[in-house]
Amino acid sequence: MTQKPSIPKGTRDFSPLEMAKRNYIFDTIKKVFLLYGFQQIETPAMENLSTLMGKYGEEGDKLLFKILNSGDYLKNVSDDLLENRDHIKLINKISEKGLRYDLTVPFARFVVQHRNDIQLPFKRYQIQPVWRADRPQKGRYREFYQCDADVVGSDSLYNEIELLSIINAVFKEFGVNVTIKINNRKILSGIAEVIGASDKLIDITVAIDKLDKIGIDNVELELKEKGLTDEQISTLQPLLELHCSNEECISSLKTLFEGCEIGLTGVKEAEFILNEVSKLGFTSKVELDTSLARGLNYYTGTILEVKANDVEIGSISGGGRYDNLTGVFGMPGLSGVGISFGADRIFDVLNALDLYPDEVLSITKVMFVNFGIDEANKVLEYLSVLRANGIACELYPDASKMKKQMNYANERKIPFVALVGESEIESGTVAVRNMESGEQENLTIDQMVERLKD
Amino acid sequence: MTQKPSIPKGTRDFSPLEMAKRNYIFDTIKKVFLLYGFQQIETPAMENLSTLMGKYGEEGDKLLFKILNSGDYLKNVSDDLLENRDHIKLINKISEKGLRYDLTVPFARFVVQHRNDIQLPFKRYQIQPVWRADRPQKGRYREFYQCDADVVGSDSLYNEIELLSIINAVFKEFGVNVTIKINNRKILSGIAEVIGASDKLIDITVAIDKLDKIGIDNVELELKEKGLTDEQISTLQPLLELHCSNEECISSLKTLFEGCEIGLTGVKEAEFILNEVSKLGFTSKVELDTSLARGLNYYTGTILEVKANDVEIGSISGGGRYDNLTGVFGMPGLSGVGISFGADRIFDVLNALDLYPDEVLSITKVMFVNFGIDEANKVLEYLSVLRANGIACELYPDASKMKKQMNYANERKIPFVALVGESEIESGTVAVRNMESGEQENLTIDQMVERLKD
Repeated sequence: MTQKPSIPKGTRDFSPLEMAKRNYIFDTIKKVFLLYGFQQIETPAMENLSTLMGKYGEEGDKLLFKILNSGDYLKNVSDDLLENRDHIKLINKISEKGLRYDLTVPFARFVVQHRNDIQLPFKRYQIQPVWRADRPQKGRYREFYQCDADVVGSDSLYNEIELLSIINAVFKEFGVNVTIKINNRKILSGIAEVIGASDKLIDITVAIDKLDKIGIDNVELELKEKGLTDEQISTLQPLLELHCSNEECISSLKTLFEGCEIGLTGVKEAEFILNEVSKLGFTSKVELDTSLARGLNYYTGTILEVKANDVEIGSISGGGRYDNLTGVFGMPGLSGVGISFGADRIFDVLNALDLYPDEVLSITKVMFVNFGIDEANKVLEYLSVLRANGIACELYPDASKMKKQMNYANERKIPFVALVGESEIESGTVAVRNMESGEQENLTIDQMVERLKD
Repeated sequence: MTQKPSIPKGTRDFSPLEMAKRNYIFDTIKKVFLLYGFQQIETPAMENLSTLMGKYGEEGDKLLFKILNSGDYLKNVSDDLLENRDHIKLINKISEKGLRYDLTVPFARFVVQHRNDIQLPFKRYQIQPVWRADRPQKGRYREFYQCDADVVGSDSLYNEIELLSIINAVFKEFGVNVTIKINNRKILSGIAEVIGASDKLIDITVAIDKLDKIGIDNVELELKEKGLTDEQISTLQPLLELHCSNEECISSLKTLFEGCEIGLTGVKEAEFILNEVSKLGFTSKVELDTSLARGLNYYTGTILEVKANDVEIGSISGGGRYDNLTGVFGMPGLSGVGISFGADRIFDVLNALDLYPDEVLSITKVMFVNFGIDEANKVLEYLSVLRANGIACELYPDASKMKKQMNYANERKIPFVALVGESEIESGTVAVRNMESGEQENLTIDQMVERLKD
């Protein structure tokens, strides 16, 4: 029953090298989350379909991976239902669980379910895979990690400031130059109000969200199709083209919004955040961008998106403030704000810029050649000493030909090879070869520890 | 559409405290794996059913979680098949993916699929959840993590020695006293051969594997039922009761196995391992236990199991050597040896013995009280300094009543609260309160860094 093994389309195996890089990304982000007082949670891969269905729109419902009930899943299915071959209706009878589609809905479910055990404001982070039955294509997978931090239960703009600081700290740590674009849904509402098209707010935001992709002309076309008049569109236009400093932008918005309360509130929130952040010595650029809309309709305040300055790629992080995250689970009125790091894109950016530190990529520092039982016994002693000093090392398990053993060290990019033969045992030393330079020297085990520690 | 949220039975949410403990467990194990030169891989949660089915026996096939095909999954199902209501036959038509049941089969699939990219011997570790549609009960979940390290492509017993060293190092790090029991399937084969019951090897191992659970009398009963004669059983008996030193045990086995090649090979392998390990200064006790069998039939050499000495609980780690892991995927003759840590049981053991270091459980070191905008602005500066020194800290986001803010710090077990009011701003200090002792002192930010760093 031999078979050629493969994995489902849209999924990936991660090799040791890819894992080393991914661990570096997640560990760096986790370290920063912890410095900012965020606490990790995890939720199950499988959620009840009742938790997931209806939360991501009709299209989302289709993209959920559904789990077949265990045992005789047809037991409670009527003959009629089977004969009708209605695969959508049948799902409810044969499946009651699905794979998590994002981390937001499970988080909302978690907050409500554990409301008595958590302390508000609740600052949580979560790094787990999600699954979507999307058509796989370049850079889009059916299984991928999300990496989210949210604060729920506090309206304070200091949460936004802390989250922006996290983004700045993370990309500074990675060495990636980024621009953080921020906007506020209230500014967008204000604009819709000012041009007399409040009823078309969603159409407007959906359209201008495409500005980067389809260009200003097509955005205007779409707005026209949605019923905006030429006059309304021409009032909008300067906002979409605005290439001014944050101060200029704030000031012209204030003028535009005279008498428009929601617009003014949005500007003031943005102004406060920009002002505070400007004092914190960010390495990242923070820009008010009134054309930033973000697709999701649940944002209600600040929205943000992060672009890498030196790599041509979509946004590598994003987020915003939302109201009523938990309302659908019976806990209304809880405001929250969150960010999400796009691990796969960050992986690509760090690859493109070659920014992985060497020490995260090489795992084993030194491999001892295996010359046979007597020598290997001595090596076991040395391994203990090195490991007690935090130096990753290994003994080639078999007393194979030297060439084979050296080849293994080479392929694995192990930087040092150590030789303990008869004469080294006699002199109590180890011959340590630097695999890059080819240099070799005889060291005592203590000297070896000193040499390899840094 | 309010609903009371819940999660599927047998699955779990992990709270921040549980996550802190679990991270400590996984990070400790990972650190040791790395010191021994093991490399991490990850495989997708979903595997093709063709990869999974038939690998875990008939019962295992039933316990696989199967994923409904996307779209109209009934499209290619004949009316006949539907009418027959044969849920097992129908599965092949409506589902082609399942959730991973363990890490071993995906690892075997990985090795074969990537045979040209990996270097043998391949030392990999993998820490990921697995899913089983088992009946949930205390300590048994439908989603749980496995934590495996394996070496494939090397017959050398040094692999066994290294894996035993890993077990010793991990539990030393945890501060848990353990006994590692080892045996060898060749010893069991030898015993079966010596008593003239080689054809009943599997029955014998299955029966004596239950020794701990059902007692020697019931094991003998089971052996009798399986067709062993009283004489055969009485030859077995002393081996099952053997409470002797490793040396005594080895020596009596050698006598028993005179002329029985497979038995002698097994004894010599065990002897070599025990002898080497005895020189390495283990804190764990290592015992040869001829009654250790382990259920799985694919082990062919060394087998091992780890028991906590001070907690009443099943084995917390186990493993062994197997041949032909990858044969079913078309790559025969690859020998391997592996161990697996039982994360959920280790979690329980560390809880029972209260062995979690304080520093892994408290996340935020200091919370700053929020007195309003002017003070908070100053605090933002201080936060940057503390974080640059690796100290986890946060500002309470809202200028709420003092009591509410202190309560938050208390509930979250944050050890220090910092107050920056008007007078502190004037004097350039921070009032730092130790939440345990109640002591409060005024410190400059530099003094505060020094104080909180350790």
